[in-house]
Amino acid sequence: MVKPIFSLIFSSLFLINIACAQNSEVEWKPELTDDWTPVTDSVSTTGYFGEPPSDAIILFDGADLSAWESAPGYFPSMDGVPDYLEALQREYDSAPWKVEDGIMTVVPGSGNIKTKQGFGDMHLHIEWRAPAEIVGDGQGRGNSGVFLMGLYEIQVLDSWQNPTYSNGQAGAIYKQKAPMVNASRPPGEWQSYDIFFEAPYFDDDGKLIKAAYVTVLHNGVLIHHRQKLQGPTVYIGLSHYEQHSRKLPIGLQDHGDYVSFRNIWVREI
Amino acid sequence: MVKPIFSLIFSSLFLINIACAQNSEVEWKPELTDDWTPVTDSVSTTGYFGEPPSDAIILFDGADLSAWESAPGYFPSMDGVPDYLEALQREYDSAPWKVEDGIMTVVPGSGNIKTKQGFGDMHLHIEWRAPAEIVGDGQGRGNSGVFLMGLYEIQVLDSWQNPTYSNGQAGAIYKQKAPMVNASRPPGEWQSYDIFFEAPYFDDDGKLIKAAYVTVLHNGVLIHHRQKLQGPTVYIGLSHYEQHSRKLPIGLQDHGDYVSFRNIWVREI
Amino acid sequence: MVKPIFSLIFSSLFLINIACAQNSEVEWKPELTDDWTPVTDSVSTTGYFGEPPSDAIILFDGADLSAWESAPGYFPSMDGVPDYLEALQREYDSAPWKVEDGIMTVVPGSGNIKTKQGFGDMHLHIEWRAPAEIVGDGQGRGNSGVFLMGLYEIQVLDSWQNPTYSNGQAGAIYKQKAPMVNASRPPGEWQSYDIFFEAPYFDDDGKLIKAAYVTVLHNGVLIHHRQKLQGPTVYIGLSHYEQHSRKLPIGLQDHGDYVSFRNIWVREI
Amino acid sequence: MVKPIFSLIFSSLFLINIACAQNSEVEWKPELTDDWTPVTDSVSTTGYFGEPPSDAIILFDGADLSAWESAPGYFPSMDGVPDYLEALQREYDSAPWKVEDGIMTVVPGSGNIKTKQGFGDMHLHIEWRAPAEIVGDGQGRGNSGVFLMGLYEIQVLDSWQNPTYSNGQAGAIYKQKAPMVNASRPPGEWQSYDIFFEAPYFDDDGKLIKAAYVTVLHNGVLIHHRQKLQGPTVYIGLSHYEQHSRKLPIGLQDHGDYVSFRNIWVREI
Repeated sequence: MVKPIFSLIFSSLFLINIACAQNSEVEWKPELTDDWTPVTDSVSTTGYFGEPPSDAIILFDGADLSAWESAPGYFPSMDGVPDYLEALQREYDSAPWKVEDGIMTVVPGSGNIKTKQGFGDMHLHIEWRAPAEIVGDGQGRGNSGVFLMGLYEIQVLDSWQNPTYSNGQAGAIYKQKAPMVNASRPPGEWQSYDIFFEAPYFDDDGKLIKAAYVTVLHNGVLIHHRQKLQGPTVYIGLSHYEQHSRKLPIGLQDHGDYVSFRNIWVREI
Repeated sequence: MVKPIFSLIFSSLFLINIACAQNSEVEWKPELTDDWTPVTDSVSTTGYFGEPPSDAIILFDGADLSAWESAPGYFPSMDGVPDYLEALQREYDSAPWKVEDGIMTVVPGSGNIKTKQGFGDMHLHIEWRAPAEIVGDGQGRGNSGVFLMGLYEIQVLDSWQNPTYSNGQAGAIYKQKAPMVNASRPPGEWQSYDIFFEAPYFDDDGKLIKAAYVTVLHNGVLIHHRQKLQGPTVYIGLSHYEQHSRKLPIGLQDHGDYVSFRNIWVREI
Repeated sequence: MVKPIFSLIFSSLFLINIACAQNSEVEWKPELTDDWTPVTDSVSTTGYFGEPPSDAIILFDGADLSAWESAPGYFPSMDGVPDYLEALQREYDSAPWKVEDGIMTVVPGSGNIKTKQGFGDMHLHIEWRAPAEIVGDGQGRGNSGVFLMGLYEIQVLDSWQNPTYSNGQAGAIYKQKAPMVNASRPPGEWQSYDIFFEAPYFDDDGKLIKAAYVTVLHNGVLIHHRQKLQGPTVYIGLSHYEQHSRKLPIGLQDHGDYVSFRNIWVREI
Repeated sequence: MVKPIFSLIFSSLFLINIACAQNSEVEWKPELTDDWTPVTDSVSTTGYFGEPPSDAIILFDGADLSAWESAPGYFPSMDGVPDYLEALQREYDSAPWKVEDGIMTVVPGSGNIKTKQGFGDMHLHIEWRAPAEIVGDGQGRGNSGVFLMGLYEIQVLDSWQNPTYSNGQAGAIYKQKAPMVNASRPPGEWQSYDIFFEAPYFDDDGKLIKAAYVTVLHNGVLIHHRQKLQGPTVYIGLSHYEQHSRKLPIGLQDHGDYVSFRNIWVREI
């Protein structure tokens, strides 16, 4: 007796085979991992701008970008990004962003930057500001990102009255987890992230012993409490861990917007 | 009457549709959550067929299906299944599977069955057998499933020398996690699952307090060690928890194949 | 009326006594759970004094103690305390501590205080100051405590160049876990705790479903990262969970020293 | 030569002694970590005696003790044991226990034995039998122990109608955690342990990255579900982790009783 289920399964397998053959009907789209609901509640806050503790490593105190360098095509999450970011392949002799009046600002088109030093378990304090004048919307407004170990992104975005998918807004573990609340301040105002990060741990055979975990305060408000990461940030599809070293540079993303940063320091924990 | 769990699922699917409405080409396909690599190593084993402990609840001892009932359209994982399984909507006065010589066997087309009693935290022991004569391949060969709480599937499949996606083979937490090893025995031989399950816990507001966890022995071989579940099994897309009660019936799936079962018991833990 | 939590504690202590009754020399001493090593490294910091977010509940803004009340004999950790604290049994019509110049200060001998409102999952921000003039040493110097849910103590102590057992210093989960570092500021200076607390969860039968977890920043420095608690704070012996409700008052301890507090607020999380 | 693990333990005990030196009456007694309540419920079971899977390493199949060797003074938990066990310091050329009729039996006074090979993450299957004739009571009746990595003890004891402290009965993670139920069979009958163990992981600086976890089936009944271990088993006081390698020998304890073993195998997981 021929059952309909068999033909279904057969055709499914067939679809998989042609998917492997690059058939466009079965392929991941970036939108598939966007969560639009629930919409995150907003909390108003004046921020949280502490001085670095005595054992902190200063990554930017307003003077220069000497702790940073150019990071062409650095971030894995760019795989599959079709346009702007893929083009950022130039390498510069030094970090190509602008420093003025004690703040650093993305130079769109110059590419990402990363720290010269590698970090694993850390408290990263970083302050950032989206342009006061609103240009664009959704992901196209005040977009940048903090890449822990160059792999795990905490999203930077002007999320003040700016709807986008919840796991893509400011403070999101990009494409993995929306923040508990939206603690964004208006564009043009300084905001802070305090990121408490536990690096993943692999044994010598590459087996994952312990996943990465992150706690984040956005302007002093808890938005993640030791959240487990699924793996490195990916723009398309699902994430899986791949073995890497215990310390890797922190990256900041050029996403084409004039996002500024100041007071960046790390305490190794 | 529409059950609460269905209305929740319906509304969340509805929201996904809204989110994707801008681009009709952006939709989930079942194949997107199939993991074909790595291929799981095989382990040969003679099985593990213990007697029920003194405080076990016997669900099937070979006599009859009095602990079971018909479960038309019961399992959420069917959402998105286009043909055979959706059609299994008939309700029967009693569980419509066959009992002969102390074993019960799926009657293809009669639909799923579920226990009359609900269970949460449990040790579930169940023995099963795929037909000795091989018919079909991949997901079309000896397919059934154990649905913990009617929501969380441990896959039943004839995975003896039968390639399929790793997180869809025998013992997989279906579409979520491949077993550590393939401990399958040949078709026609009895196999056992010992499933140690911790039910998820929600507070009165529906907030997830604790996820579901499962440990599974397949023929006495460890294939999951207190693995965290992402949520209920879904055929298409990613899974999320929805509030449900602490105890729900166990389901067995009619997937169109003549899979048999015997010696089914539960110890509440 | 005897509260349930007290009767539980009483009966379990009783059983321990029975168990040990064969040999009167076998009994717990408070010192047995003091960890003196390793000595915690010190970190210097200027503190972290953010404004409350818009959805915070203000517990003390400098005006009065209207959110607080007298808590005679309130904290379970006093079981076994031989002298001063046991005597604090008087009940007052209102919280008996002093408010002056926008700060509240312990009135030694008046007893503990607790919030009128109960809290469970929370971010608690609290600022405190040990007396500028050093009196006493070890546990006898600037001692107080923040009791989450009246049960789980984060130690308050003047730990500036003041050796004591590591799991009894400022920021310790008292008798359970030393802080990662000693982030104490000198006596007479204000210090802050930002405490992110997840309450334990029990099912209706009293079974522990999820333990309590706490993350603490001391003057902005991470000293606990989602640390699991063994149970309520006890002065003598080992701790075990006993069922209690999801929200309970926050307590502050009168330990006989003139410790001051200001800017106390809670965000429910 | 003193092994590193011993010197670490020695120095930490030394520090505790210093800490307590002020009051010579303040010292740990073994009884302080005995939990007598609640008394564990009993479950009757016929056992669970599976064949080893194809990739198992056979440690004892009834023929001889060639996989084992003498382990004089091997187990750290003996620190503080005042009489019998301390005396077991002799070293033998081969494992000094008796093999007869396919079973091995403790020769009291000959000391512990351990595997020649080291193991970390593992499924250990072991069958054991207490003497049919009851001699002694409590901890003095059919006492032995399975030491995972030579450090983490799953208690072996004749716990059939034999009251003792709950975290010292058969199946207990000795002095740390009582089994969920008492699944003991009568003395003289064979019993099985299936132990699923995840070894702890330390980084190169000795920092604990991941604790040890264990799941145990006693005669097929779940008695621990991925229980976190506090550290190596200690007879007196509280346990703390000390860095050790990823694989270490399994030990079996000579506690003076004629306990027998058979069918011992390991699957590395």
